[in-house]
Amino acid sequence: MEFNCTPIGVIHTSFDTKESAPIQGVFHPDAIGTVEILFEFAEGLLDIDLFSHLILLYHLDRATDVKLVLRPFLDDTPHGIFATRHPCRPSGIGLSIVKLLGREGNLLQVSGIDVLDGTPLLDIKPYVTRFDCFPEASEGWFSGKEKRAKPPGRE
Amino acid sequence: MEFNCTPIGVIHTSFDTKESAPIQGVFHPDAIGTVEILFEFAEGLLDIDLFSHLILLYHLDRATDVKLVLRPFLDDTPHGIFATRHPCRPSGIGLSIVKLLGREGNLLQVSGIDVLDGTPLLDIKPYVTRFDCFPEASEGWFSGKEKRAKPPGRE
Repeated sequence: MEFNCTPIGVIHTSFDTKESAPIQGVFHPDAIGTVEILFEFAEGLLDIDLFSHLILLYHLDRATDVKLVLRPFLDDTPHGIFATRHPCRPSGIGLSIVKLLGREGNLLQVSGIDVLDGTPLLDIKPYVTRFDCFPEASEGWFSGKEKRAKPPGRE
Repeated sequence: MEFNCTPIGVIHTSFDTKESAPIQGVFHPDAIGTVEILFEFAEGLLDIDLFSHLILLYHLDRATDVKLVLRPFLDDTPHGIFATRHPCRPSGIGLSIVKLLGREGNLLQVSGIDVLDGTPLLDIKPYVTRFDCFPEASEGWFSGKEKRAKPPGRE
């Protein structure tokens, strides 16, 4: 059942270390990054400029051991990994929704990006409110959890 | 840069063929499916029940040839693959946001699911409105495109 996934590009940010990377981009709307698409895939960007928001999928290439139950960054109570957005996941796949600021050839400038510099990009999908925006969704244990520093010792 | 991704489960739906699968789950809110998580990962479901909506990532295992520019199901104008939600993507990774109806052990019943029966599940992430809901996002070329049948000959 295993499958191979080949990156289509790389994400450049100013976050060199796990400590410096934001917990979620939405808490850091000003965090700017550049999404570089390999030339061989650049043709697939046609009309990307029509969208204000993009879904990025990427390989969490510096994640460490997977724990199925863990205390996430925003809570001190343990939760199952699939009930968190923690980066150490069985899939190794991360997801961020970012704002598209502009495009220059195969480079996309985005904001609200929360990933480490050099993260391999797997896919870009256009964010479409009708498909992706569910204001009625519950926030589960995230409800009322505000931005805070990453607790020491948690990766 | 290539990496191996191992499925954590399988998605069961009533859609056996590409022709029968909905274009987007949001157009078929009543489409019910069962997300089965392998027993070895079931512990990671702790507290998933707190969420009303889940993000599913899965392997589009029956997708055919990737075209970087193509006419998607909802439009007759060609767009770059990264400006569409078309299933034949370089990454092979699909994304659906579904409603969680209930859980029984390692089985999650969901609605608004648009994938083929037997699709390998890669990840589940909780949908969190603060991170994932952007009502102000533009809809790009999707704007005004309504539900329609898949045009013949397009996969």
